[in-house]
Amino acid sequence: MEFKMKEGGFTTDLEYGELHISGNEEYGFRPYQLLVSSVAVCSGGVLRKVLERMRMEFTDIKVNTEIERNEKEANRVEKIHMHFTIKGDLKEEKVKKALEVTRRNCSMVQSVKDSIEITESFEIKA
Amino acid sequence: MEFKMKEGGFTTDLEYGELHISGNEEYGFRPYQLLVSSVAVCSGGVLRKVLERMRMEFTDIKVNTEIERNEKEANRVEKIHMHFTIKGDLKEEKVKKALEVTRRNCSMVQSVKDSIEITESFEIKA
Repeated sequence: MEFKMKEGGFTTDLEYGELHISGNEEYGFRPYQLLVSSVAVCSGGVLRKVLERMRMEFTDIKVNTEIERNEKEANRVEKIHMHFTIKGDLKEEKVKKALEVTRRNCSMVQSVKDSIEITESFEIKA
Repeated sequence: MEFKMKEGGFTTDLEYGELHISGNEEYGFRPYQLLVSSVAVCSGGVLRKVLERMRMEFTDIKVNTEIERNEKEANRVEKIHMHFTIKGDLKEEKVKKALEVTRRNCSMVQSVKDSIEITESFEIKA
């Protein structure tokens, strides 16, 4: 990947389109937002596939994240909590199992889990 | 942050705009692309500030990345190499020093460095 400097930030050309990134949200998506997005959507996408494979019926998945940063260590991201809201007629135990499988198979969680504490919770909505 | 499921992926509303993320590049930016972007642009942006603070004259910064993934471990990102191309009348030793300061101050590098091997190289272009 190649990142080019532009006013206030950087840009990169990807298959989906041009991505603008900047520490200033007027010029692009902020780096920590991209980091959190990579972890949350990798997990959401894998969960979606796992639920389908387990033949569980659902109509929607929402992922809400909470982030903790450490000001004393260059403001690094220390913790990402993901809360999944899954719409469907689902059993709690099976969702729990699906989330365990998801965690093991999500490449982004596996990429950062030794540096960033990643935690999950979920709720089922009818 | 809140991520909503859409066809083929997820989306989130941020200050800069709507971000579409998907494992399929037809529907959004891929999670690993966002992870790499967060690390590369955080570094590029911090380097820009460090060079300015050190009163070094430059007109452009480009960051090229190489990524190594591990298929045996859920295809996790194992290594990100960043190559900085800096345009300016600069001394090699001072750029090296600036990159060390950058690494310590880049919150994204500090967030993932215990999980992902992050390496840097650079070249100066007149």
